[in-house]
Amino acid sequence: MSKAKVETVDTRDKAGEFFKCTDEERAVFEAGIKLGGIYHQFIGATVSPENVDHLEKTMVNGITVQPFVEHVEAHIDRTELKEKRDPYDYITVTGKMLDVRITTRYGTARTVCRLRYIDELRYPLMYIEKVERV
Amino acid sequence: MSKAKVETVDTRDKAGEFFKCTDEERAVFEAGIKLGGIYHQFIGATVSPENVDHLEKTMVNGITVQPFVEHVEAHIDRTELKEKRDPYDYITVTGKMLDVRITTRYGTARTVCRLRYIDELRYPLMYIEKVERV
Amino acid sequence: MSKAKVETVDTRDKAGEFFKCTDEERAVFEAGIKLGGIYHQFIGATVSPENVDHLEKTMVNGITVQPFVEHVEAHIDRTELKEKRDPYDYITVTGKMLDVRITTRYGTARTVCRLRYIDELRYPLMYIEKVERV
Amino acid sequence: MSKAKVETVDTRDKAGEFFKCTDEERAVFEAGIKLGGIYHQFIGATVSPENVDHLEKTMVNGITVQPFVEHVEAHIDRTELKEKRDPYDYITVTGKMLDVRITTRYGTARTVCRLRYIDELRYPLMYIEKVERV
Repeated sequence: MSKAKVETVDTRDKAGEFFKCTDEERAVFEAGIKLGGIYHQFIGATVSPENVDHLEKTMVNGITVQPFVEHVEAHIDRTELKEKRDPYDYITVTGKMLDVRITTRYGTARTVCRLRYIDELRYPLMYIEKVERV
Repeated sequence: MSKAKVETVDTRDKAGEFFKCTDEERAVFEAGIKLGGIYHQFIGATVSPENVDHLEKTMVNGITVQPFVEHVEAHIDRTELKEKRDPYDYITVTGKMLDVRITTRYGTARTVCRLRYIDELRYPLMYIEKVERV
Repeated sequence: MSKAKVETVDTRDKAGEFFKCTDEERAVFEAGIKLGGIYHQFIGATVSPENVDHLEKTMVNGITVQPFVEHVEAHIDRTELKEKRDPYDYITVTGKMLDVRITTRYGTARTVCRLRYIDELRYPLMYIEKVERV
Repeated sequence: MSKAKVETVDTRDKAGEFFKCTDEERAVFEAGIKLGGIYHQFIGATVSPENVDHLEKTMVNGITVQPFVEHVEAHIDRTELKEKRDPYDYITVTGKMLDVRITTRYGTARTVCRLRYIDELRYPLMYIEKVERV
């Protein structure tokens, strides 16, 4: 499979001159940065039935404000969250619990990338679901 | 100044045997752990007018669920938060912006500890505001 | 400018089926993940004349072991590192101090990406220096 | 058990006026801060046979430079470290792998505190091994 790609500079992008790449490459690079950052930011964070909603919104809004992000969905698996039985009985965020999908747009390109734990790989995979011309 | 201190074991504390200290020492130690953790957890997090409330609640609830915490207040300074002018114009949490106060209780001791940027020290200081017998 | 791109699957890549993209897009995505992660991992870390070498090597080796990385260089600016004058006089890593360059390879594509503070942008920029066919 | 405690101000401590506590409480509080910080700093870090030594030294030196620390030992369990078989086969630091012991000193008090995974608690416990008058 083969695609023709273009390189443009988003008029809002004062850093555009530093990038030697197509719009599609830029869009997926920006998504990779956000996913790599969110992972290291939130792994190990304390999560409970009381703060899980706020934690999701903190993630979504924290990514949305970053460059070239159009849309973000973040879901933390609640299966293991439960009432505390003793002071040491609390949960921290692991790679298994996160499902984050980010849509980025740069110039003529839009991409959807995702962080999700893949059971058969036993790995929290960050992957590219879609790259499209807009 | 001199105080007599006691050592007890909180009945909920299945880890009590590991600690060789007074209740007061235990209470401030637990507060120190939480403040040290919250600092490294949230420094560098993206913060905006949209997510600052969620970020504060994430902090409060994330600490509250940890061992021997009675009460938590967290405030993020909003002075620098503003509308974005371009994609690179966003703010991340720094030590100057955080004000977090934690009340911990262990056995007969209660302590109030705080993280706050002290202008004259130019340092985000974690300190012990109060230690009391309850 | 326009380039034809190809999509292959690296034979070592058991996650290849999840990616809908060209080799070039995959290579820059992998680089973005690593740069985004390293930034959030090390911002705020305590750095001194004694541990700055180890910190650089920890970064380099920690990235090198991740998927599809061929080469890593990491440099922490030592300008602000100095002898301590009092207990509160120590330095933590900021975005201004880091210069990290990562070469990733996927299938037929190789890319060089970089994290570096750009004075005129006043921003620690992550950017794509080169994308090439190999 | 009961101990008489004293409050002094370390002459190097320009923040001393903010603390309302004994030297012993101060010493354990400082240890708690460092242990809480190191945990959140290094959990999730990529670790391999090549970088595990540097990671330990980065921890030790990073803590040693902080206020009122006399001595630090850090050990990362190497049992799970091994040769990579495929790109996704790498290890990140978990609470089970860390054993960190910190000696802090404030005024007339010295304390030894530790982070270690306790099998019977299934918890990475931070605890106070010793508090002594010096």
